Amino acid sequence: MAVGNVAVPDTIYAIDGITLSATAAGVRYKDRNDLVVIEIADGANTAVVTTKNAFCAAPVRVLREHFANSSPRYLVTNTGNANAGTGADGKRRAVDICEALANKASVDSNAVLPFSTGVIGEPLNSEAIIAGLDNALTSLDADNWLAAADGIRTTDTIPKVASQKVDIDSSISYHITGISKGSGMIRPNMATMLGYVATDANIAPDLLQEMLNAINEQSFNRITVDGDTSTNDCCVLIATGKASSQIIDSPEHSHYQPLFTALTEVFVRLAQLIVRDGEGATKFITIKVTGGKVSQECCDVAYAVAHSPLVKTAFFASDANWGRILAAVGYAGIEDLDTEQVDVYLNEVMICQNGVVAPNYTEKAGNEVMSRPEITIHIDLARGSASDTVYTCDLSYDYIKINADYRS
Amino acid sequence: MAVGNVAVPDTIYAIDGITLSATAAGVRYKDRNDLVVIEIADGANTAVVTTKNAFCAAPVRVLREHFANSSPRYLVTNTGNANAGTGADGKRRAVDICEALANKASVDSNAVLPFSTGVIGEPLNSEAIIAGLDNALTSLDADNWLAAADGIRTTDTIPKVASQKVDIDSSISYHITGISKGSGMIRPNMATMLGYVATDANIAPDLLQEMLNAINEQSFNRITVDGDTSTNDCCVLIATGKASSQIIDSPEHSHYQPLFTALTEVFVRLAQLIVRDGEGATKFITIKVTGGKVSQECCDVAYAVAHSPLVKTAFFASDANWGRILAAVGYAGIEDLDTEQVDVYLNEVMICQNGVVAPNYTEKAGNEVMSRPEITIHIDLARGSASDTVYTCDLSYDYIKINADYRS
Repeated sequence: MAVGNVAVPDTIYAIDGITLSATAAGVRYKDRNDLVVIEIADGANTAVVTTKNAFCAAPVRVLREHFANSSPRYLVTNTGNANAGTGADGKRRAVDICEALANKASVDSNAVLPFSTGVIGEPLNSEAIIAGLDNALTSLDADNWLAAADGIRTTDTIPKVASQKVDIDSSISYHITGISKGSGMIRPNMATMLGYVATDANIAPDLLQEMLNAINEQSFNRITVDGDTSTNDCCVLIATGKASSQIIDSPEHSHYQPLFTALTEVFVRLAQLIVRDGEGATKFITIKVTGGKVSQECCDVAYAVAHSPLVKTAFFASDANWGRILAAVGYAGIEDLDTEQVDVYLNEVMICQNGVVAPNYTEKAGNEVMSRPEITIHIDLARGSASDTVYTCDLSYDYIKINADYRS
Repeated sequence: MAVGNVAVPDTIYAIDGITLSATAAGVRYKDRNDLVVIEIADGANTAVVTTKNAFCAAPVRVLREHFANSSPRYLVTNTGNANAGTGADGKRRAVDICEALANKASVDSNAVLPFSTGVIGEPLNSEAIIAGLDNALTSLDADNWLAAADGIRTTDTIPKVASQKVDIDSSISYHITGISKGSGMIRPNMATMLGYVATDANIAPDLLQEMLNAINEQSFNRITVDGDTSTNDCCVLIATGKASSQIIDSPEHSHYQPLFTALTEVFVRLAQLIVRDGEGATKFITIKVTGGKVSQECCDVAYAVAHSPLVKTAFFASDANWGRILAAVGYAGIEDLDTEQVDVYLNEVMICQNGVVAPNYTEKAGNEVMSRPEITIHIDLARGSASDTVYTCDLSYDYIKINADYRS
């Protein structure tokens, strides 16, 4: 069961210049939508971020080549099979799909980017996908965002959608809509995280890529379920430019900041939905580290805490076991950390002051916070002004159950 | 249940120059041995390695100061309470214990090293420990190694002992005996790993410390249950010099290599026993990485695999899920890793060749290996001649049960 508010928005804005379809091609299962095509109008700009995993999947390799050569017009995603660990045959099949779609749509095959998610190490049924393309292309519609969010699910328990309207002035409004999938950083042997976000704003290509890089660092790069980075992770940001002829080409442009803020909110929401739908999650945990010398050390501390199985099981047990949190802070590898300056809070309750248990702390107060479904750990290192935030979930029996039983 | 052969040796050699006692001081529980004293004869040399955790416990801080000032004559260990996260009061109590023992034994208080293991963040009942010292000192005996191994247990399910005799020639034999404790790197809120090893060889102090550093890197620093590094981890190597007047003062000495080899075997056995007794462990897993450019990258890959919850749950499920292993290798952060060179074996079964599933691999063969209690993953990076090995266990329901329920 996903944790907390995971509802789709009441209003999902269509994005002028984007149409989508979700259809059933029978990649792995029958009668289930497993093929999602996103069509991008000519003239749009697109930015992409892909996994840092050295074992990246075949579609990721093809995507990088195509993206280097052309502006994307079609994104084609299949579920059921990640086309990872499949070698030269996998790469050829990813190319085949792009070429087939390019022929049908009369675009260059470099303008088609492939995405796959699902089981690792099995040959991709590219023939089924190619046979399904006609149906996919005739089903394209601007109002299919929710259907697409549903279509890219594998073991996700909920579709993940975020949508916002940004009013610049009485004459200009921008719209942002996005979808994501994933429920562990890498689900069992599933290759996992995908995110597609589009806006009708007109953003110059270089700036768009910079924005995606920066926003990704605050969103998809700040979540962890189990610390495993997938072979297939990708996220895409599209600016169709249909809302206005004004080109936003620098951070000084007056439209930049409101757009950046709204895009960040959409990305953070899509990223948090992945954690809320984390494998076996019963708690949504925000780990905020302040007082670092630099952002990186705040991240290092936050991830050490977020990845500690002992901390994660304590959250599952609603046990305010601050010794485990301090121990994880202590082994995060921060040079010259003065532990006698470190304060730790669980929501509003101070549990540690200057590295030892806070004088007014009671286990009752700590455990009361721990029993809530949404918890913030705030760690103040008191050695600088940098801060960073990571989102994670607890480690439960169901995590083991899901991951140990998956293939049986 | 501990995994595989965890028996204590048939013969546990007494070490001339070492006596031990295990008595009940009532630190936390009644009628349970919780106070272990090790007496070291005058003239012995001792080397020490302590935790790298920035939040090191009070006894570790005191130990470092005492060890810098004097050659140790007594090691005093209590269970039930780690005296960690206890601030200035904790440090004073650790000093009090050392001073009390020093007075009774007529040695300098710097010659007493304190060790604590147990619950974090509660005041140490140093009064009970001090009251128990007379009984502890009168109980010292050279044949108490097993009793001491039993006495330093907290949640360990087995006492951990290793012992060897090294025959140099017809006139000189050395003996090595050691004990360890720990069953997660940091058990619930327990602060965990301790190791004490003694030999009757005569090894110069600087060389002894070098040997301990090197051997520790191949043993206690190559095990992981959950990736958590404890606030109290310490290990000690004592050379009493009683077996021979010959001083071993360089690696070129003819006695050095056989001693080094035997000491390494004792340390590796003591370290592996901790993994075999790992929290909820049902499998003992050796992760051997070869073909690295340097040892560090082999370690990085081995630890990435050892810490992946997805790999660990796959082992628990006896599922030869090679995609999870490859994904972990891929995110270990090895620069310019050519994944198309990587081979992976489960025991004798090749599962991946050149980064894709091996041509003759069958899931049946993989799962047959995975169903065994002792498994070796061999990952060949094929980019150099360095290698390294890490030992770990699987991640089971019982891990969650032990760690989620511990304090309730």
